[in-house]
Amino acid sequence: MQSWSIKEEGFDQERISSVGNKFLVGNGYFGIRGTLQEFNKNEYPAINLAGIYDRVGDAWREPLNAPNGLYTYLEFNHKEYRLPEVEAFSHNISLNYRHGIFTRTTTWNATGSKLTVNAERFASMEDKHLIAMKYSVHSEVEGDFRLVTGIDADVWDINGPHYDEILLSQNQDILKSIAITHESKDQVCVCESYQMDASHQEQLVAEDRKSLRVLSFHAEAGKTYTLYKWISVYTNKDEANYEDAAYGTVAKAKTSGYEAVLEKHIAEWEKKWNISEVIIDGDLEAMEALNYSIYHLHCIAPRHTDHLSIAARGLSGQTYKGAVFWDTEMFMLDFFLLTEPTVAKTLLKYRIDTLEGAKKKAKYYGFQGAFYAWESQEGGYDACSDYNVTDVFTGRQMRTYFKDKQIHISSAVVYGIMRYVDYTGSYDLLAEGGAEVILECARFYYDLLLKRIGGNYYELHDVIGPDEYHERVNNNAYTNKMAQYTFDSAIRVIQTLSSIGDKTKERLSNNYDLDALLHSFKDATEWLYIPQADTVTGIIQQFDGYEKLEEVGIEELKGRLLHEKEYWGGAYGIATHTKIIKQADVVTMLNLFSGEYSEDILIKNWEYYEPRTEHGSSLSACMYAMLACKCHMPDKAYPFFMKSALSDISGKGKEWAGLIYIGGTHPASSGGAYMTAIEGFAGIHQEKGELRAKADLPSGWERMAFKIVYKGDLYHVNITKDHAEVRNLGKHMD
Amino acid sequence: MQSWSIKEEGFDQERISSVGNKFLVGNGYFGIRGTLQEFNKNEYPAINLAGIYDRVGDAWREPLNAPNGLYTYLEFNHKEYRLPEVEAFSHNISLNYRHGIFTRTTTWNATGSKLTVNAERFASMEDKHLIAMKYSVHSEVEGDFRLVTGIDADVWDINGPHYDEILLSQNQDILKSIAITHESKDQVCVCESYQMDASHQEQLVAEDRKSLRVLSFHAEAGKTYTLYKWISVYTNKDEANYEDAAYGTVAKAKTSGYEAVLEKHIAEWEKKWNISEVIIDGDLEAMEALNYSIYHLHCIAPRHTDHLSIAARGLSGQTYKGAVFWDTEMFMLDFFLLTEPTVAKTLLKYRIDTLEGAKKKAKYYGFQGAFYAWESQEGGYDACSDYNVTDVFTGRQMRTYFKDKQIHISSAVVYGIMRYVDYTGSYDLLAEGGAEVILECARFYYDLLLKRIGGNYYELHDVIGPDEYHERVNNNAYTNKMAQYTFDSAIRVIQTLSSIGDKTKERLSNNYDLDALLHSFKDATEWLYIPQADTVTGIIQQFDGYEKLEEVGIEELKGRLLHEKEYWGGAYGIATHTKIIKQADVVTMLNLFSGEYSEDILIKNWEYYEPRTEHGSSLSACMYAMLACKCHMPDKAYPFFMKSALSDISGKGKEWAGLIYIGGTHPASSGGAYMTAIEGFAGIHQEKGELRAKADLPSGWERMAFKIVYKGDLYHVNITKDHAEVRNLGKHMD
Repeated sequence: MQSWSIKEEGFDQERISSVGNKFLVGNGYFGIRGTLQEFNKNEYPAINLAGIYDRVGDAWREPLNAPNGLYTYLEFNHKEYRLPEVEAFSHNISLNYRHGIFTRTTTWNATGSKLTVNAERFASMEDKHLIAMKYSVHSEVEGDFRLVTGIDADVWDINGPHYDEILLSQNQDILKSIAITHESKDQVCVCESYQMDASHQEQLVAEDRKSLRVLSFHAEAGKTYTLYKWISVYTNKDEANYEDAAYGTVAKAKTSGYEAVLEKHIAEWEKKWNISEVIIDGDLEAMEALNYSIYHLHCIAPRHTDHLSIAARGLSGQTYKGAVFWDTEMFMLDFFLLTEPTVAKTLLKYRIDTLEGAKKKAKYYGFQGAFYAWESQEGGYDACSDYNVTDVFTGRQMRTYFKDKQIHISSAVVYGIMRYVDYTGSYDLLAEGGAEVILECARFYYDLLLKRIGGNYYELHDVIGPDEYHERVNNNAYTNKMAQYTFDSAIRVIQTLSSIGDKTKERLSNNYDLDALLHSFKDATEWLYIPQADTVTGIIQQFDGYEKLEEVGIEELKGRLLHEKEYWGGAYGIATHTKIIKQADVVTMLNLFSGEYSEDILIKNWEYYEPRTEHGSSLSACMYAMLACKCHMPDKAYPFFMKSALSDISGKGKEWAGLIYIGGTHPASSGGAYMTAIEGFAGIHQEKGELRAKADLPSGWERMAFKIVYKGDLYHVNITKDHAEVRNLGKHMD
Repeated sequence: MQSWSIKEEGFDQERISSVGNKFLVGNGYFGIRGTLQEFNKNEYPAINLAGIYDRVGDAWREPLNAPNGLYTYLEFNHKEYRLPEVEAFSHNISLNYRHGIFTRTTTWNATGSKLTVNAERFASMEDKHLIAMKYSVHSEVEGDFRLVTGIDADVWDINGPHYDEILLSQNQDILKSIAITHESKDQVCVCESYQMDASHQEQLVAEDRKSLRVLSFHAEAGKTYTLYKWISVYTNKDEANYEDAAYGTVAKAKTSGYEAVLEKHIAEWEKKWNISEVIIDGDLEAMEALNYSIYHLHCIAPRHTDHLSIAARGLSGQTYKGAVFWDTEMFMLDFFLLTEPTVAKTLLKYRIDTLEGAKKKAKYYGFQGAFYAWESQEGGYDACSDYNVTDVFTGRQMRTYFKDKQIHISSAVVYGIMRYVDYTGSYDLLAEGGAEVILECARFYYDLLLKRIGGNYYELHDVIGPDEYHERVNNNAYTNKMAQYTFDSAIRVIQTLSSIGDKTKERLSNNYDLDALLHSFKDATEWLYIPQADTVTGIIQQFDGYEKLEEVGIEELKGRLLHEKEYWGGAYGIATHTKIIKQADVVTMLNLFSGEYSEDILIKNWEYYEPRTEHGSSLSACMYAMLACKCHMPDKAYPFFMKSALSDISGKGKEWAGLIYIGGTHPASSGGAYMTAIEGFAGIHQEKGELRAKADLPSGWERMAFKIVYKGDLYHVNITKDHAEVRNLGKHMD
C-alpha cells in the first residue's frame, strides 16, 4: 500500500539544505522549500518564484525568493524556542506528496514542561498565489506563550540582496510587504493575515526587513492553541492591480477558512493524480519513488500562465540561476505531453517567445538563425557566463564553453516542438510560431556547417556535447545527429505547411525563401557527417579523436584528484584527456534514435560507454535506463531507473561543481524516471501515428497501470508480465 | 675600437647557468658551455653534441652531452682548490669571440701563498672533433701540486642519464671513454691526451664514471707549470671507424702542438669574419653586440655534414630537447644565406631529409601532405609533447597544443626553401627534394581548408599562431597568410618545373597529378580568407574574436600573477582571455609581407600591437625592430634591435616556463639582430631579382659596412648617412 508520505526523524543541521529540497511543496508559481517556520536566511528558507529575475552588480542574475510570509517562532515564559538554536527533545517532519502538504512536529524541553509545535502548510494548487499554514502549540504546564509571526523580507539569496527597498505596511488585519528589485524595479507584494483560536494580545513590530506581529496569550496546561496564516504573493508582472489581488487572495482564503481551502487544494491534486499516478504492483519502493518524482514535476509545472518554462532545479532555489536548460525539452517534457499537454504547450511557448533572444545570440557569435540560450532567463537572455567554474587551486574563474559551444541546445527546442506535434497530433504550436523556431534553428546549424575542401561531408566543429568534460570537440555524434534531426524537422515543416494552416503558410512564405531553405536543408541532411558504428567493434565514437584518449577506470581516475571539489572537465581536468565522460552522450543519441540502429549496436555501445560514464549529471542515469529498456535489458535498466527516481529522496546529487553551489531538486531526473517507466519498461511509443506499448518489465514488477493522453484522447494502459493493454477512454479535456 | 672580448670578474654561484651560455664556444659539431674545468654535473658543464639524441623512459628525448674530457682540478699540498667549493681570492673569465677562445684566471688563498690557475680552451674550427685546452698553475711559494684531469662521463642531463654503460680504457698516452646510449645503443667516443712542460709523476685512476690521471709534481715558488690537453669526440654516426678517428685526431693534434692547432683554428675564424663581420661606426656597443651575435651563429653552424639543422638553443645544452623549431628558417637562415649559403643549404637539406617524418605526422592527425615537427629531432620525429608546461599550482602537466595546432611550421620550411632559391638564384635545392617539400606542405594546408557552407572563403580553424598565449583560434592572420604563401610557392614550383630540371620535372610528374594540384592551389590561394585591415582603425585582427578580448595593460596583468612561474597561456593563463600576446604575430606577418601593405597600415598595427606584446619570446623583438625599419622608424627599431643583439650577453632571457627550465643561448635572437641590421637598417632586399639597399640608420650610426653573398657573387656594402653603395666583388667561393 502506497504511503504517499516521506518522513525524517531528528534534526541534523548538516542536512538543512538537502531537506529543504526533499520536502519542497509548490504549485508552479512558487516553490516553498522544506524548511522550518523559524528559520532565517542562514538556513536557506525560500519561497522561490517562477520566471522573475534580478541581478546585482556583476554577479549572476537569479530568480527571486519572495519575502517569507511563513516566518514564525515561539517564546514560552520569555524564552525563545527555535531550531537550530535550541536543541529539540524530538523533531520530525513529513511530506504528504499526494497533496503537497508539509508537516513538522517539534518538542522542546522547557523548565518543568515539554513544549510542542505542530505545523503544516501547503502551496495552494487551486489559487496559485496562496499559501496556507496551520501552526499549533502546546505545553504540558501552563505558561505565557508569545508567537512571533509575520513577513521576513530579509531572504536567503546566492547573489543578492535583490531588494533595494522594502515597503512595509501593517494593520491588524493584513501585513503587506512590497519588495522592490534592484535591476528592473519589479515589485513583489506579499500579504499576510492570520486567525487564532484563542483570545490573545497582538502587537505589531517592524524591524529591519521584518514585519511582525507578536501574539501573546496565557496557555493552560495540556491545551493546544492554533494559529492559521494566509499568505499571498503577487508581482507587478502578474497583473496591474497586483496589490489588490494579493490582498483579495488573503481576504478570501481567510473568509473560507483553513479546511475549505485545504479541501479545494486536495481536490486539485486529486485531479492531477487521476491522470498521472502510476501503479506498479510488486515493487512498492519503485512505485513510491516514481510517484514522488511525479509529485515534483507537478509542483513546478507552470499552470498560471501560458508561456513559461521550468528551471533546471525547478523551484527549489536560485541554483543554476533559475534558468531553463535543455533539461526541460529533453527530460521533463514527455511527462507533461503524456499527462497534461497544455503544460507542455506552455513550456514550448516560452521557447517561441524567446526566439528573438536566440536570434540575437546567434548573431552575436556571427551566425544566422537561432542559437538558444544555454541558461535561459526572461526573454531568452542567456544567463550562462563565460566563466562557470571556480578553480579550486587558484580561486580564479575558469573559462568554460557551455554558453558558446553547446550548440545542441537549439536542437532540443526543435525536438520538443516536434514531439508536441506528434503526441498531440496538433499543429497549433507550429502555427503559433513553432514553425519559425524550427526554421531558425535549422538556419543556425546550416550556417555552422563546415566542409573540408578535400572532403565530401559537412562537419560541425568546436562544440560541446552532452558530456561537458570534453570541451571544444569536432563532430560530436549527438550534436551532429540532432542537427540532422533539425534539418529533417525543418524540411517536414516546409513540406507540410499547407496542413499547418494558410495563415502560417502565408506568414512563412513572406518571411523566407522557402524553396531555397528546403534545398539547403535537404543538402545539409544528406551530407552532414554522422559518426557511424565501427565495423569491427560496433562502437560509435563520441567525437573525432575520442578513441585516442587515455583508457582509465573511474576509480583510478578519482585517485588522481588533488582536491575533492576540483572540476573534472575544462582544459586540464582529470577526465579531460581520458575516455571518462560525465554523462550519457552517444547513449543519449542512441536512445533518441534507437529505431535507426540494430539492437547489437545499441547494446555494444551501452556496454562500452556505461563503465566510462561518471554519471556526474542527473541527466545521465535515465538515458542509460531507457536505452537498456530498448535493448530488452530491463534489469540492467532498473538500477539507473531507481537512481533517477530516487535522486531527490536520496539527496545524493552533487551539491558542488568546483566552488559553486549546485544543490536543489532534479526535475530532469524525475522526468527521466517517468520516461523510463512509461516509455522504457511499459514501452509506450508511437507507431505509424498510433499509440503502442511494447512492455518489458523488470524482475519483480507484476503489473503497471497508468493513464496517458495521446492526440487528445485519454488512454488507460495496463501491463502485466504477459499482456499489455492500451484502452482508449475517449476525449480528454485538460 | 672593437674589443672582440667579453669578460666577467668575480664568481657568482647564482649565475653559473647563464655564464655557461654566455661564454660558450663551439664549432657546429659541439658547443662547450662556459663552465670551469673543475665543475661536475651540478654546475651544468656540457659538451653538447649536434644531431644525436637519446631518450630514457617517458622523459623527453634530448641531445647528448659528451663525456667531459676537459675535466681538471688541482690540489696543492694535499688540499683541493676548486670552485664553487673553495672561495677564490679573485676570479675572472673572458671570451674572445673573434676566435672562440674561452679563458679563466682564478687565484685562491692557500696557506702562506696564492695559487693561480690560468686556462684557455677552444673548439677547433679547423677539426670539428677537436677540443684543445691549456691549463697553467702557479704558486707564490714552493709546494706539491697534483692536477687531477681526465674524462668525466658522469655528465649533466636534464632527462638522463643517457649512458647505460661507459667503457673506459686507459694508457699513459690516451684515455678513451665510450659511452653507450640507452635508446639506440649509440656510442660516443671521447679520447684524451696531454702534454706537460715539466717532469711529473702520473697515476691512472678509474672511478665510477670518471677516467682520471693524477699528475704530481713539486713546484718552485713563482714558476708557472702548464698542462696541454687534447680531446676528441666522435660518435658511431660520424663514421665506421670512429674510435680510430677519435684516436687519430688527438694524436695528430698532440704532434702538431698547441700553438699550431690554435693558429689553424684562428685562420678558420678569420675566414668567417672576412665575410660576416659587420662594421658600425658611431655605435661601438651595437657593433660589438651584433658581432657577438654573429659569433654565436658561427658556433652552431653545421659544417661537418651537408644535412643538419640548428636547435632552438643552439649547442648550449638540452633545453627544448635540442630540437629544431621554426626559429631556424624564420630567424637564423638569412644570416647563412647572406654569408655562407652552403650552411643555409645544409639546414634546409635537413628538412628535405625529414619530409617522411612530416608526412607521417600529417597522416597521424588525419591530413594529407607534410606537417613538419614542431620540435624536430632525428628523422623529423616530433619531440614536442602534448604536455609541455607544468601547472605550478597542481604540479600536473598541462595539455598544450604546440605540436598539433601550430600548423604554421610547415610554411616556415617552405619560406626557407623559397628564400634559398631567391637569394642563391639556384634551383639545386628544389631539384634535390625541395620541390616535393613545398608540394607536400601545400597539400597539407589544402587538406586543412574549411569552408562554411554559407560562406565564400576558405578558413583555417583551431590553430595556434606565433603568439602561443592564445590557443586554438580560428583564422590567425599569420597562419592564413603563410598558408597562402605556401600555395603560391607550390604554384610557382609547378609552373617553373622546366627550369628546375628535366629530372625533377619527370620525378614530380610521375608522383603527382600536377595539373590537379595546380588547379587546387590556385583555387585555394584565391579564396583563402586573409584577415584584412579594419577600414576605420587599420588594425588587422590577430584571429577571429581577438577584438572581443579584454583590454588590459601588461603591468596590470602581471599584478594578477599568483605565482611568479605560472604559465601566462593555456586555457586559464592570465593572458589567455586578454589582448596581451606573447610575441609578434600580426607584426611578424606584416614584416614578411610588408610590400603588400601601405606604410600607414604597417605603422598602425605596429603601434597597436607593440604595447600589447609581452615579448615573452626571444623571437619577438627583432620582428618589431624589422617592421619599424620598414616603416622608416629606425629609432623605434633600435631598442628592439639591441634587445635581440644583447639577448645572450645580458642573459635576461626567460629561464623558466612554468616549472620547465628553458635557459640557453638564443640563436634566433642573434639571427634576428643580424636581419635587423642588414635587412632593416641597411635595407638590403631584392628588387626584380637584384640586390638593393634602402638604408635608414638609427641616430648615431655614421656608417655600416659589411659583405654579403647574393646569387653566387660577393658584395661589399657601405652605407653612410646619405649614401648606400653596393659593390659586386665577383664570384664567391664558399
